Amino acid sequence: MAKRGNLMTFREDVRVVDATIRDGGLCNNFYFTDEFVRDLYKANQEAGVDYMEFGYKASADLFDPEEFGKWKFCRDEDIYDIVGDNDTDLKIAVMADVGRTNYKRDIVERSNSPIDLVRVATYINTMPAAIEMIEHCAKMGYETTCNIMAVSKAHREDLKEALDMIGKSSANAVYLVDSYGSLYPEEIRALSEMYLEKMDQYGKQVGIHAHNNQMLAFANTIEACASGVSMLDATMNGMGRGAGNCMMEQLMGFLKNPKYQLCPVLHFIEQHMLKLREEGIVWGYNTAYLLTGRLNMHPRSAIAFSKEHRYDFERFYLDLDQE
Amino acid sequence: MAKRGNLMTFREDVRVVDATIRDGGLCNNFYFTDEFVRDLYKANQEAGVDYMEFGYKASADLFDPEEFGKWKFCRDEDIYDIVGDNDTDLKIAVMADVGRTNYKRDIVERSNSPIDLVRVATYINTMPAAIEMIEHCAKMGYETTCNIMAVSKAHREDLKEALDMIGKSSANAVYLVDSYGSLYPEEIRALSEMYLEKMDQYGKQVGIHAHNNQMLAFANTIEACASGVSMLDATMNGMGRGAGNCMMEQLMGFLKNPKYQLCPVLHFIEQHMLKLREEGIVWGYNTAYLLTGRLNMHPRSAIAFSKEHRYDFERFYLDLDQE
Repeated sequence: MAKRGNLMTFREDVRVVDATIRDGGLCNNFYFTDEFVRDLYKANQEAGVDYMEFGYKASADLFDPEEFGKWKFCRDEDIYDIVGDNDTDLKIAVMADVGRTNYKRDIVERSNSPIDLVRVATYINTMPAAIEMIEHCAKMGYETTCNIMAVSKAHREDLKEALDMIGKSSANAVYLVDSYGSLYPEEIRALSEMYLEKMDQYGKQVGIHAHNNQMLAFANTIEACASGVSMLDATMNGMGRGAGNCMMEQLMGFLKNPKYQLCPVLHFIEQHMLKLREEGIVWGYNTAYLLTGRLNMHPRSAIAFSKEHRYDFERFYLDLDQE
Repeated sequence: MAKRGNLMTFREDVRVVDATIRDGGLCNNFYFTDEFVRDLYKANQEAGVDYMEFGYKASADLFDPEEFGKWKFCRDEDIYDIVGDNDTDLKIAVMADVGRTNYKRDIVERSNSPIDLVRVATYINTMPAAIEMIEHCAKMGYETTCNIMAVSKAHREDLKEALDMIGKSSANAVYLVDSYGSLYPEEIRALSEMYLEKMDQYGKQVGIHAHNNQMLAFANTIEACASGVSMLDATMNGMGRGAGNCMMEQLMGFLKNPKYQLCPVLHFIEQHMLKLREEGIVWGYNTAYLLTGRLNMHPRSAIAFSKEHRYDFERFYLDLDQE
């Protein structure tokens, strides 16, 4: 498949999605101050970001609202409180996890909601449930994406089947999600081509959500983009679970569309992200994440290792390798 | 040009070069303890590393030996002191900078030296002097490479000319050196192909030395490798000037040749690299390096910015952009 675009021009189909609150919320149980969220909303507008993901639409029956900040639940009224009528070019997104969202109750008519896009997150084995959610959301008037997580663990035949299911559904796009940060650029290119080949048939877009376990999140994002992937996830300073994500400042430095602006992102990092780190919120690459990424494993053991301030990497690696 | 090799097998032509003392020495003025250097020599052997670069062969007439550790000068007797007769598979390398090395005096017959490989570092505008050094070193019996620094600033026509000069010289290999960490993977692939096309004509190898300013050092190294580049530079924990280098632990996790072992590298990091950081030696990615990398500039202003513990990234970027 040919390369799409080049380093001198820009592609009109590219969309940047800020996932700071959602993926970053996994680092601080979604306890962001309103000031943080308001300033982020403003920074994203100024930077030309296309979508801002506010968090998860998790069911309050399954998760205790006393244990999480409000962006775990993304009640429409809480989003309205930040964005008002959102009379801007920045669209509002939420993530809805299969099996963790009471979507029939909580995802209402779009005309009564500040939300524009619902991103349905699923593993490969719950595709029918994902499609059901997508159809509900589409019927309610939302844009939808299907985000197949942990694709590095999926079999190719299952993945092809899943892509056809999404192709035939009402979803606007499918996301290539490297949850474990284990994929190398050449694997990302091969998967991007597979996703694009399928989605081109159905007239749908492809997105990329990369993790930085092996320090490849930015490289994988721009390589996917060069292959034709058009929805690009990033987070401020890379804030996200474990090793974090592609950084918004990296992506804004790369993209050539003049609407994308790096300075508002740098300003926001100065204003807010450094403070979060000072407060003890931890994210970003370290050697332990490299090892789980390399072994194509969930980063939970590396998160625990890091929290315990352990530095016996060799022992950790040998133990992982026996699992 | 076709891809060389794949993710399941390994290429016999790949060589790993540890540049920790040399590029890392730029962070601590080459003041490494003998214990550090001895343990690194041992770790590299155990990890299957092919070459260990001990430092620069700088002229003591030009640099004051009181101001630098001994690995700035790499006297043969100091290397002998670590490696003895070096009865191992690990070859010994040094870097010799054009204009900073009294090579006629300091680079003697290989049979009287512990050194196997002399890497001649040059900018594109001092190629004739580089060739002269290469011919001297080759005549003395050494393997040689020509490392053209800051290639992101060179004009393609000059670069082609330089590659032909190297092709016709006694050099064994040419290095693609992204001194400013400004190149994206697709640029690295294009340059790799250009270097390889030329060097294939002359039966010589190509190497890659990447910097991590945009967090692309590992990605660029493995992408160059997949294009056919065979000499791969890395440093322990990425230690190197400014944002540092491709990390040895990343590279050892990637390469498939069973002779390459990750555990000795992890062990060395636990043993020594964390201590260096505790002692206040600083290297590695930060936002300031991203900005000089993005603007294709020498990282010196980002190094100064970081040393001053400044965090006003927006101001820094605006000032850089006016230079």
